[in-house]
Amino acid sequence: MLQMKSVRVECSSPYEVVICDGLLTEVVGAFPAGKEGSTAYVLTDENVAPLYLDSLETGLRRSFRDVKAVVIASGEEHKTLDTVGHILGELARLGATRSDTLFCLGGGVVTDTGGLAAALYMRGIDVVNVPTTILAAADAAVGGKNGVDLPTGKNLVGTFKQPKRVICDVSAFTTLDNMNISNGIAEIIKCGIIADQELFELLERNTSDTLDFADIITRSVKIKADFIRKDEFDNGERAKLNFGHTVGHAIEKLSGYKTPHGFAVAIGMALLCQNSRVTRLLQRYELPVATEFTSEQIVNAAMNDKKKDGDSINVIFPSENIGECRVKRVTFAKFQREVESGLVYVRDCKT
Amino acid sequence: MLQMKSVRVECSSPYEVVICDGLLTEVVGAFPAGKEGSTAYVLTDENVAPLYLDSLETGLRRSFRDVKAVVIASGEEHKTLDTVGHILGELARLGATRSDTLFCLGGGVVTDTGGLAAALYMRGIDVVNVPTTILAAADAAVGGKNGVDLPTGKNLVGTFKQPKRVICDVSAFTTLDNMNISNGIAEIIKCGIIADQELFELLERNTSDTLDFADIITRSVKIKADFIRKDEFDNGERAKLNFGHTVGHAIEKLSGYKTPHGFAVAIGMALLCQNSRVTRLLQRYELPVATEFTSEQIVNAAMNDKKKDGDSINVIFPSENIGECRVKRVTFAKFQREVESGLVYVRDCKT
Repeated sequence: MLQMKSVRVECSSPYEVVICDGLLTEVVGAFPAGKEGSTAYVLTDENVAPLYLDSLETGLRRSFRDVKAVVIASGEEHKTLDTVGHILGELARLGATRSDTLFCLGGGVVTDTGGLAAALYMRGIDVVNVPTTILAAADAAVGGKNGVDLPTGKNLVGTFKQPKRVICDVSAFTTLDNMNISNGIAEIIKCGIIADQELFELLERNTSDTLDFADIITRSVKIKADFIRKDEFDNGERAKLNFGHTVGHAIEKLSGYKTPHGFAVAIGMALLCQNSRVTRLLQRYELPVATEFTSEQIVNAAMNDKKKDGDSINVIFPSENIGECRVKRVTFAKFQREVESGLVYVRDCKT
Repeated sequence: MLQMKSVRVECSSPYEVVICDGLLTEVVGAFPAGKEGSTAYVLTDENVAPLYLDSLETGLRRSFRDVKAVVIASGEEHKTLDTVGHILGELARLGATRSDTLFCLGGGVVTDTGGLAAALYMRGIDVVNVPTTILAAADAAVGGKNGVDLPTGKNLVGTFKQPKRVICDVSAFTTLDNMNISNGIAEIIKCGIIADQELFELLERNTSDTLDFADIITRSVKIKADFIRKDEFDNGERAKLNFGHTVGHAIEKLSGYKTPHGFAVAIGMALLCQNSRVTRLLQRYELPVATEFTSEQIVNAAMNDKKKDGDSINVIFPSENIGECRVKRVTFAKFQREVESGLVYVRDCKT
């Protein structure tokens, strides 16, 4: 018997997120998503391909007539429309049809560019996400948002397209370096802050060496699934999942996308929480809480962010109690004062 | 009082297609689609801008806080993902937000690239189509299919995104040359063949000089709306609107996209109809019925078309009675025999 957990995402086209620890080949083989006689296309990147492509392809050969791979360069700088164009060209060159399925094997760049390519190819083919990073498993692979960056801002281009299934083998996390472990845990800490005090406390009681990843990914996915059920198309409640992200995206942009997503979100959360439990937990998982950028730089960079609408901005503020938050519409001036006061707070924390 | 006709398109997000003869400014001003305080972005091309951009902008200023234009190069060769990337970059540079609306003023390249850009920008902003060609009014502007071409085939990349409204001022057709008039009438003849004998006979009794364009556009849009109501996402019935298009797309591709869309579809219809009434009507509107390409070239080019699925292909065949057709799944070999016999038929017709 395979040991696995499963979370159902209720939305316009419901699906399962399957979480297992090892046995990727068996899990993929046991959960065929393919139509009779169709081909599985695997999108992955040059770092992930040598590690997990073989295991995935072996599983896929049990249920698909044929398996073909498209390998892209690795790195956030490739999350562009050009990469999506390259993937689309490769699908066409390899003869992909409407009844084929694209499997996105990798981190957030692979699931984001692959999800968009699947949404666009012949006006939509099925996509299955197989995240290999904590960040992708807890965030990008689930929920149907795909996207690429423009020079003016992150994720400005994309669609909503739910995957047919998500298959997460947490044993892949063993090949992540410390930076990528911290990077992913930032999004899990976020889930705790906005919606799950128990998850937050579980993180407080552990370290990245003692965490049960199958358990915390399952908990994070349940939280995300709950927001998607309430607000699939991001017209209100789902915005809470963006806690820390307005500042985070600004810091990513200001750093020329050198600051990893989770690190930038960690800073954003620290600035808006101004809560010592939060800053301590972030530091426990080797995440930064301070930044060299000024409040003025951060707010200017945020003004091109997609959550902008006129002269004010939606910002997510945590409640004093861990596990609750609210969306508030504030002017850019008010937002800058909040960031400024956060910068003062975390400067004092560090000493 | 403004003289206008209106067709309601019933689908996932219903909307009106408004058809008028003159008074674009007044019609746009009288039908505001804008949210309070939002900006109207107008996408148009370098040929259309000097003719109609002023009239549209004057109307839009009555209901939008601000109006900004993005002008792209003209021509089918610009129906690419690169052009969509350029439009997205311009929207971001000009500060477009989620509550703004994109107005696509022009022919099919403008509505197809603009519709895709609107579907992708911040995961979707409202789009209103203002077609200025017969082809766009009868086809591309209505129905929610947008798309761009890949080197391997036409419209391989796109989404379904219904416009919020379509506003068609047929007085714009007075600036079309003969080629563009014939090009658009081909799609209207198609509507007659597949679904409306009366429309077909109306076309038989007129010439392009005597046609009441407001009337025939209204009839064509009603036919298209009826297919969309039954099958918005192109899983069956809607395929009938592709009558003549499998061969048509192949001929466009073989000609290096030098053969206009309507001309290529006319050839496709002539080959599959093998009906003298159809070939006579096409010739009456200065449309070709024959081609220099061989059946083998056409079928090879069609094999990369998006309607392919395995070793067979969906082809739309007209019934003997004008106004009826059916979708048949045939092997590529059978399809090639049909094309071959059509080539023989139209060669004899010409003499």
